[in-house]
Amino acid sequence: MNAPHRIEDSVSGGLTPDEFKAAFRQHAAGIAVITGDAGNGPVAMTASSVFSVSAEPPVLVFSISDASSAAPTLLAAETLVVHMLTAENLDLAILGATSGIDRFQDTSIWARLPSGEPYFTAAHAWLRGRVVDQMQIGNSTVVAVHALEASIPNDAGDSQPLVYHNRTWHKLSGNSKIH
Amino acid sequence: MNAPHRIEDSVSGGLTPDEFKAAFRQHAAGIAVITGDAGNGPVAMTASSVFSVSAEPPVLVFSISDASSAAPTLLAAETLVVHMLTAENLDLAILGATSGIDRFQDTSIWARLPSGEPYFTAAHAWLRGRVVDQMQIGNSTVVAVHALEASIPNDAGDSQPLVYHNRTWHKLSGNSKIH
Repeated sequence: MNAPHRIEDSVSGGLTPDEFKAAFRQHAAGIAVITGDAGNGPVAMTASSVFSVSAEPPVLVFSISDASSAAPTLLAAETLVVHMLTAENLDLAILGATSGIDRFQDTSIWARLPSGEPYFTAAHAWLRGRVVDQMQIGNSTVVAVHALEASIPNDAGDSQPLVYHNRTWHKLSGNSKIH
Repeated sequence: MNAPHRIEDSVSGGLTPDEFKAAFRQHAAGIAVITGDAGNGPVAMTASSVFSVSAEPPVLVFSISDASSAAPTLLAAETLVVHMLTAENLDLAILGATSGIDRFQDTSIWARLPSGEPYFTAAHAWLRGRVVDQMQIGNSTVVAVHALEASIPNDAGDSQPLVYHNRTWHKLSGNSKIH
């Protein structure tokens, strides 16, 4: 292995966007799709930024760029659905990451919960929650969601979660386990 | 497949901690170890909650539970190091996740950066940054870090990132790629 590529703090603002993105290509992330409707129709967005902050109260966070077409709705909605995806849900991940399309055109893949939120029926698991806090950072917002309801498959232990790393989709399985 | 296990919003506070944890066992996460020193000696903590919020400015976030032994120091430190781990760094992930030990007892595995922060020299990649914001949620804090400096190996494209899912360690590799 060669010596690591060292990026010094020579610029007053810290790393450049390209340097920062290069570093984060070294970090893997589970993939979720987030849906909501603030009264102007359903929106969806694929996110690699979902994590659990607190189990009591049950709160997760994710971040959303102002550049996302879904941003105005997801930042205005009182409640959201966070879908946890498996490799079988790759089509949903790509749908929520593709610009310039109507992500709800195919009415066979989504429905509304009794509480009104749009959701993708094939998603492996999901949480419905209420937005409880937001933190603006640069051109993005970190959104905190208090979980109200969940749907988890009974065969969840056999699932093959969808993971994103270095611009490539991966799936976890028995083969990827370390032992 | 049986019908999914549906957890209703019957409790006023939303999901119970156990229900919420069960849902998040469906979500995979890249693994990082975070180190810092606020003047009282080095601390380290393994985190499955690191993500990039904004590339310009270059800001990442992670969350820390008040119950973590590293919390007082990491919440007081002005600067931190976030190490992105590969499968070869599993020992570091376990070190930072094990309670009741001195995580810096083995002085052969860590050093200090010229700027003073402790870091694990074998870690695949790392970012050094300044804490710029904190958001308290329940018994945890979401910490925002402005990236100042990074170390990325030149052979980063061949790395096998460490991922955690459903209480199991996984590694990404060519075998886990979808396609």
